[in-house]
Amino acid sequence: MEVFMYDFDFEVPVKILFGKNGVKNLAEEILKYGKRVLLCYGSGSIKKIGLYDEITEQLKSKNIFFKELSGISPNPRINEVEEGVKTVRENNLDFILPVGGGSTIDCAKAVSACVNYRGDAWDIITGKAVIQKALPIGTVLTIAATGSEMNCGAVISNLKTKEKLGFADKLLLPKFSVLNPEYTFSVPKIQTAAGTADIMSHTFECYFSLNDGAFLQDRFAESILKTCIKYGPIAIRDPENYEARANLLWANSWAINGLLDGGKNTAWSVHPMEHELSAFYDITHGIGLAILTPHWLSHCLNSSTVEKIADYGKNVWNLPQDEDVYKTAQDAIQKTHNFFVSLGIPMTLKDVNIGEEHLEEMAEAAIRHRGKNGKIYGFQELTEKDVLAIYKAAM
Amino acid sequence: MEVFMYDFDFEVPVKILFGKNGVKNLAEEILKYGKRVLLCYGSGSIKKIGLYDEITEQLKSKNIFFKELSGISPNPRINEVEEGVKTVRENNLDFILPVGGGSTIDCAKAVSACVNYRGDAWDIITGKAVIQKALPIGTVLTIAATGSEMNCGAVISNLKTKEKLGFADKLLLPKFSVLNPEYTFSVPKIQTAAGTADIMSHTFECYFSLNDGAFLQDRFAESILKTCIKYGPIAIRDPENYEARANLLWANSWAINGLLDGGKNTAWSVHPMEHELSAFYDITHGIGLAILTPHWLSHCLNSSTVEKIADYGKNVWNLPQDEDVYKTAQDAIQKTHNFFVSLGIPMTLKDVNIGEEHLEEMAEAAIRHRGKNGKIYGFQELTEKDVLAIYKAAM
Repeated sequence: MEVFMYDFDFEVPVKILFGKNGVKNLAEEILKYGKRVLLCYGSGSIKKIGLYDEITEQLKSKNIFFKELSGISPNPRINEVEEGVKTVRENNLDFILPVGGGSTIDCAKAVSACVNYRGDAWDIITGKAVIQKALPIGTVLTIAATGSEMNCGAVISNLKTKEKLGFADKLLLPKFSVLNPEYTFSVPKIQTAAGTADIMSHTFECYFSLNDGAFLQDRFAESILKTCIKYGPIAIRDPENYEARANLLWANSWAINGLLDGGKNTAWSVHPMEHELSAFYDITHGIGLAILTPHWLSHCLNSSTVEKIADYGKNVWNLPQDEDVYKTAQDAIQKTHNFFVSLGIPMTLKDVNIGEEHLEEMAEAAIRHRGKNGKIYGFQELTEKDVLAIYKAAM
Repeated sequence: MEVFMYDFDFEVPVKILFGKNGVKNLAEEILKYGKRVLLCYGSGSIKKIGLYDEITEQLKSKNIFFKELSGISPNPRINEVEEGVKTVRENNLDFILPVGGGSTIDCAKAVSACVNYRGDAWDIITGKAVIQKALPIGTVLTIAATGSEMNCGAVISNLKTKEKLGFADKLLLPKFSVLNPEYTFSVPKIQTAAGTADIMSHTFECYFSLNDGAFLQDRFAESILKTCIKYGPIAIRDPENYEARANLLWANSWAINGLLDGGKNTAWSVHPMEHELSAFYDITHGIGLAILTPHWLSHCLNSSTVEKIADYGKNVWNLPQDEDVYKTAQDAIQKTHNFFVSLGIPMTLKDVNIGEEHLEEMAEAAIRHRGKNGKIYGFQELTEKDVLAIYKAAM
């Protein structure tokens, strides 16, 4: 079988200000693009850690006008986007500053994308309408998880239609992102675990593919996985360990910005399946990914995938080269499961209060939203039946 | 000893068009920035592979005016820069298109930097004058070596003053770079070897540091080293192996664009020492780096560095964990030496016609050009005496 590195573009012009002092340049960075800001945040944890005060005082001292969009949900919703759009229009705002995690940043991206569209904002999310113009965005990140601060994608939920959909456009790439590991010190243990699982899942989606010759990209992927495996447990045990938080934070950005999948023949599998869980049950995204991942790998394990899964076991988990390559692959999957358990993640759907009642409906929706010709084309092709089998195995 | 990830910025807005078809969009990319082009190239190998015709025909068909700066030397010289500056000014050119390797790209960057400075161009290289404005650059790369296509640095030689100096400015970041592995098929074996050594040396300069907690960055570095070790020999044996050329080409870009040293406490050692060899003897940069590297590592080997060098041996060369950590470190250095030998690189200074006559002078110049308070502060501090000892060991 000939292997190959496929043609790709790589373009990530986001300026990263990493470390303890990046936020000091916030106003300076904003003023390159605008001076009337929509400040977006979630439940208010940025107030507890003093970040809200630091930022708003800086904005005021530099005469940067701002309005707030607060209370953004963990799975940000289209009605929150609409509220942001309204605030931008009413106040002629010209810059969007999300301060928080991936949800807040994704909501900000959606506001940026929708503000110049006069139709129903949901059209932009579904792709029915094209993004013509977007407001510039700069982010201040407070959790290592989604990588949204260094890419152009976002995910928005519509509770009414039970849909959770991703969309992406280069216009939505943040101009800058401030990454201070200290801001993640107060992230609760379970969210640190979920974030670590999210980073790993992004990496898995790129890493597990067949017949491509992107050796470098796969070694980069293993670097990120090893980082999560080393520092996830440390950050949970010792939340103010700067080294652990810094490595997780930087790993988070590179797991999903094009470095790992450029040149590879990949398509995502677990995210489409998880998005239905969150859409139907509003569970934490990273938890859903952790629950599904080992079952997805087990479901994919066959003669064409066994070598790749065994390589993962050897290179990431330091498993010995077993004579039986299936044993190595199975051990690698078990190691993955055990690792998520060790992080304190509930590892069955029942544990997160998902019953059997919507499994068929969710499997159908996963294929409808993210499939082509009735299949999700990832590491292995998944039909509706396959998705259902993986959901059932995860019960 | 507390370890730490240091504050850093990361900003690499270069658009990469990787693969067989990127050059088809060349005119489109150029026209975003200008329409009067200085086309730069070296000895004419781009004519042999048909790339010159492909590019000039495309420029003509899109009515893009161009003038040429050809014959750029492998260690590009200030008089070549001056010639380019003159051509740009006389023809009101507004864009610079280097097609070639790092030397051609570096020369183009210097032209870009100097064209708006009315004094002596060498002032810009030495840092005596500050770059106020630069012409936009886009590159088409034809060898995996210097990484200049994805960073803002350049190195220019002055044969008159026997100086070879690096300089850098964000204004010099290419707007785009076309990376087609096929363009590197015709790179001669020895240049493929030198390029591979250059990529590895950039990686070593970032990787070998003490007391920092940049775990992810070091795993990324090992990914690049493993890629060079796997594919360098394949590219030499089988020059048209696309997979090998593609992996080397992409590794080359990431070895020196900020990914590996951001957050680390690094300073370069081997490059400052090698630059004097090239400045005095005009040897191939990558060859000089390969010759010096094992002797530099041996010179640095002591109780504070032994763990790091042994880690390198275990993680990159799969050396077993020896009870004697010094043995592992020494084996790692020997493996590095043997690898360069296996690539066909002449591994002593005598082999490249460097005698003992200028060793003292070069050691003095290395410290003068790149030292501070009489020392180069890298993995280990190097005084003039240390540099001389390394040169002598490499004779």
